[in-house]
Amino acid sequence: MFKTVAIVGATGAVGNEFRTLIEQRGWDAERYVMLASARSAGREVRLGGRGYVVQELTDSSFEGVDLALFSAGGSTSQRFAPIAARAGAVVVDNSSAFRMDPEVPLVIPEINPQDIQNHRGIIANPNCSTIVLLMAVWPLHHVSRVRRIVVSTYQAVSGAGLRAMEELQRQTRDVLAGRPPRPEVFPHPCAFNVFSHNSPIDATGYNAEERKMVHETHKILHDQAIAVTATCVRVPVLRAHSEAVNLTFEKPMTAGQARGILSAAPGVRVVDQLDPPHFPMPIEATGIDEVLVGRIRQDISQPDGRGIDLFISGDQLRKGAALNAIQIAELLEPGGV
Amino acid sequence: MFKTVAIVGATGAVGNEFRTLIEQRGWDAERYVMLASARSAGREVRLGGRGYVVQELTDSSFEGVDLALFSAGGSTSQRFAPIAARAGAVVVDNSSAFRMDPEVPLVIPEINPQDIQNHRGIIANPNCSTIVLLMAVWPLHHVSRVRRIVVSTYQAVSGAGLRAMEELQRQTRDVLAGRPPRPEVFPHPCAFNVFSHNSPIDATGYNAEERKMVHETHKILHDQAIAVTATCVRVPVLRAHSEAVNLTFEKPMTAGQARGILSAAPGVRVVDQLDPPHFPMPIEATGIDEVLVGRIRQDISQPDGRGIDLFISGDQLRKGAALNAIQIAELLEPGGV
Repeated sequence: MFKTVAIVGATGAVGNEFRTLIEQRGWDAERYVMLASARSAGREVRLGGRGYVVQELTDSSFEGVDLALFSAGGSTSQRFAPIAARAGAVVVDNSSAFRMDPEVPLVIPEINPQDIQNHRGIIANPNCSTIVLLMAVWPLHHVSRVRRIVVSTYQAVSGAGLRAMEELQRQTRDVLAGRPPRPEVFPHPCAFNVFSHNSPIDATGYNAEERKMVHETHKILHDQAIAVTATCVRVPVLRAHSEAVNLTFEKPMTAGQARGILSAAPGVRVVDQLDPPHFPMPIEATGIDEVLVGRIRQDISQPDGRGIDLFISGDQLRKGAALNAIQIAELLEPGGV
Repeated sequence: MFKTVAIVGATGAVGNEFRTLIEQRGWDAERYVMLASARSAGREVRLGGRGYVVQELTDSSFEGVDLALFSAGGSTSQRFAPIAARAGAVVVDNSSAFRMDPEVPLVIPEINPQDIQNHRGIIANPNCSTIVLLMAVWPLHHVSRVRRIVVSTYQAVSGAGLRAMEELQRQTRDVLAGRPPRPEVFPHPCAFNVFSHNSPIDATGYNAEERKMVHETHKILHDQAIAVTATCVRVPVLRAHSEAVNLTFEKPMTAGQARGILSAAPGVRVVDQLDPPHFPMPIEATGIDEVLVGRIRQDISQPDGRGIDLFISGDQLRKGAALNAIQIAELLEPGGV
């Protein structure tokens, strides 16, 4: 059992979600340590009915910490996760800093829990878009091998944090009042607009978010041969990501088979009702644990019956981030955290 | 030259755009007739500095009309377009009523202007999502045959008319004020949400919007062999549609070749700047004639170099509806309308 749990990035969007989930899941650590940058230190956050003063993250923050949940960006993880691990904590890191490190397991508990055994103090939580995608793809792939994935995302602004969520609301108010939207967090207006994901683009023309979906899929599924292409797009939604997914299987797969497999998959809820129409929507995926999957249909562009189309919505802050990390921690302590 | 031009659906979102475009393009018909349902009759609309009282659409509305631009829904077109044609008008119809009729040409002037010659009084304007897609795909297909298209749409609410645009604004105000969004035009909330396109789904699992993209592509390109799958999704954007497109070519195609072809294509503007990032966005596609194309890259999931990914934005009310119809009319009267 983890006696002392630290949350790094305790005042952020994922940090808020960590505290909510720890309460909801009845963790009973003896001590919680709330850590953040100097800017947020001194603020009070609540967990389990009591208040905690947020402390500034320093090299000595991890004395006596058993579990450290990191969600404070890549450079903070890069610097402090090894310090926490050396101090004896197990780190579950939400950033991209260690995901592709061959010595760091990259884990979705429903998919590759066995990989956790090889950890050396740091376990990486996958990118939110990858988690949402693989929650639906893996159960199918497990039964019948997937050869190719074409995915287009409809990503909430929450991936860029609380300030981005505030920016969407502020800009939307401005546009409705006839004022021009002022972009601060994002390079482009997000109110009543969609734009290509704001992560760096390399010489291949893919942005970092898209490359994560490709490489993390290979690592988590232990299958470098799955061909993946992604187009990642921000939409004016607050906190759940949606994805339109086109799959090519090695062998024929019917929509009925896919629906059956997904209906039995852990962490997945099939929402695929034709009349009245009811399919996955980010507002319904918000705040719940399951990833919603629907629009399950045979792809008519692959006449040999090897194609399936899907539409998915999953809470970016929950299964896409905090919940998955919490589940990883619970895997480490099967007797209860 | 068309002496008398009727606009059917004169008070709607596309009707407004017809009037704007007729002014901007300097049409000089002798007479304009503004038609709408009984509900809108009596209202005044403006064109070229003067007001027109909207008349109720009846069987006798088309006496002396040379050109009738229809945008009042499928059932109105079904009933009144043949009447207008029998009265001697050429009908350019924005609805889906006649698009798949083998005797009715389905035309995008940049792509298949020759088809217009076979008209028998009615010419159909394609679905907005199809027009936006093919404006980018056709120039490539014309040079090197496209075998398969996988498209995911990010569709503005304007496709459902002015009331839908008002609904998005009203719901957004309600959500920002902490009130629940009330869906009236759409079956689901559109504020801060995305949802599967609200058109009927058939036994294949595809909705009508998706089927239009498949079948209209075959008809416009005169190529039944192009495999197409689509996932059509509404996003909280007012009036331009965006699309993430994955293409498979018969022969290898590089991103550089695709960019070169698209840069020279009529009606297309390449917006594909890496630093600072600048790609197609619906707020920049709004109110302009060109379809914006960017994120042009070699698809890494097709290692034989036969795949290209694109992201497109085009004004649904303009090139996706009114402008394309206006261009069809101008094709009919090359000497000037």
